[in-house]
Amino acid sequence: MKRNVILLAAVAMLAAGCCKQSEPTDNASVVMQTILNRKSVRSYTGDTIAADVMQQLLKAAMAAPSGRDIRPWSIVVLTDKSQYSTVFEGNFNMQKFMESGAVVILCADTTFEAPSRDNPDGPAIRQVNHLWRDDMGAVTENLLLAVEAYGLGACWTACYPYEDRMAPIRTSLGLPPTVVPYAVVPIGVPTTDNQPKDKWDASRVHYEKW
Amino acid sequence: MKRNVILLAAVAMLAAGCCKQSEPTDNASVVMQTILNRKSVRSYTGDTIAADVMQQLLKAAMAAPSGRDIRPWSIVVLTDKSQYSTVFEGNFNMQKFMESGAVVILCADTTFEAPSRDNPDGPAIRQVNHLWRDDMGAVTENLLLAVEAYGLGACWTACYPYEDRMAPIRTSLGLPPTVVPYAVVPIGVPTTDNQPKDKWDASRVHYEKW
Repeated sequence: MKRNVILLAAVAMLAAGCCKQSEPTDNASVVMQTILNRKSVRSYTGDTIAADVMQQLLKAAMAAPSGRDIRPWSIVVLTDKSQYSTVFEGNFNMQKFMESGAVVILCADTTFEAPSRDNPDGPAIRQVNHLWRDDMGAVTENLLLAVEAYGLGACWTACYPYEDRMAPIRTSLGLPPTVVPYAVVPIGVPTTDNQPKDKWDASRVHYEKW
Repeated sequence: MKRNVILLAAVAMLAAGCCKQSEPTDNASVVMQTILNRKSVRSYTGDTIAADVMQQLLKAAMAAPSGRDIRPWSIVVLTDKSQYSTVFEGNFNMQKFMESGAVVILCADTTFEAPSRDNPDGPAIRQVNHLWRDDMGAVTENLLLAVEAYGLGACWTACYPYEDRMAPIRTSLGLPPTVVPYAVVPIGVPTTDNQPKDKWDASRVHYEKW
């Protein structure tokens, strides 16, 4: 009996150890793997994105930092492909949009309302936000990393500052006047094996001085 | 003997199952957890950052996407605190820098060299990069997410476009003329329990139209 208990314990420990060796289980390794594997994907199967997955992608986008915690973002999700030729009448590669599961337009309000810094107890006034563009870079990257984590693919397509791309979107969607369409991100199930680039370059790092 | 083998197999299976239930093991959950937990941390213990961890943070930063794959980034890592009062003479909160393990300055070349789009087989010419600022938002966010994944804390401190912040950095570090110091990111071991904000707002999402 005692020998059997010892054997059982040994097998249990082995099995527990076996689970952990097959894939990175510490959070840092998993996150690094996703960051380093993220790549632009421009060709998709046409499969739709499940609603619960799309919600996670959008939650990731909205978890970005923002200057003064202003949170300038809004998001438009387009799955009705009959609208694409109108909305994306500007200089866009339509093929990848048509193959996607959805196209996400990340928008930013270039203004915000808050009391003036000179009069912090005064009334909220509408003023220019000088950091919205930086926030939106982070928003877009969060979205792309969540896409990668869920095994999907996407391609960051710049919209701002190209007026020929922005104007049809503004007009067809009826964006409020201070809101710019910042980036257009088609998302889908990748068709082919897309490889990330290894962009690490130690010569770009300067210690203590340039 | 047969009964013992069956028992062993049962225990092994139970042990294997037990490993997976104690924490999120699927990559999407781990990545989402990191994205949603990321927060600004402004107070640190003063402990240094291990060199191998710092390298991973910088690798994450350089894994960002960039318009036309230009990769405008360079990174300065400052740990010599005797230099901080000179480099950060501009309007910075020095206390968090002095407590940090390191201060990372994310820089961007606002120009790049490539053949003109009008003459793709012609000579490489130096030209303005219109998308460096968007790239750098993604670079900064990758850095912040890697920081979070390694259990460290950081705070994205805007540098561009504030001339009073940028000028002393340019001068003291001797940055090349087309390179801007984009963001200053102190990184350290967090002192107190910092809670992330839940910024999800379903009213910011518009389906098919605004």
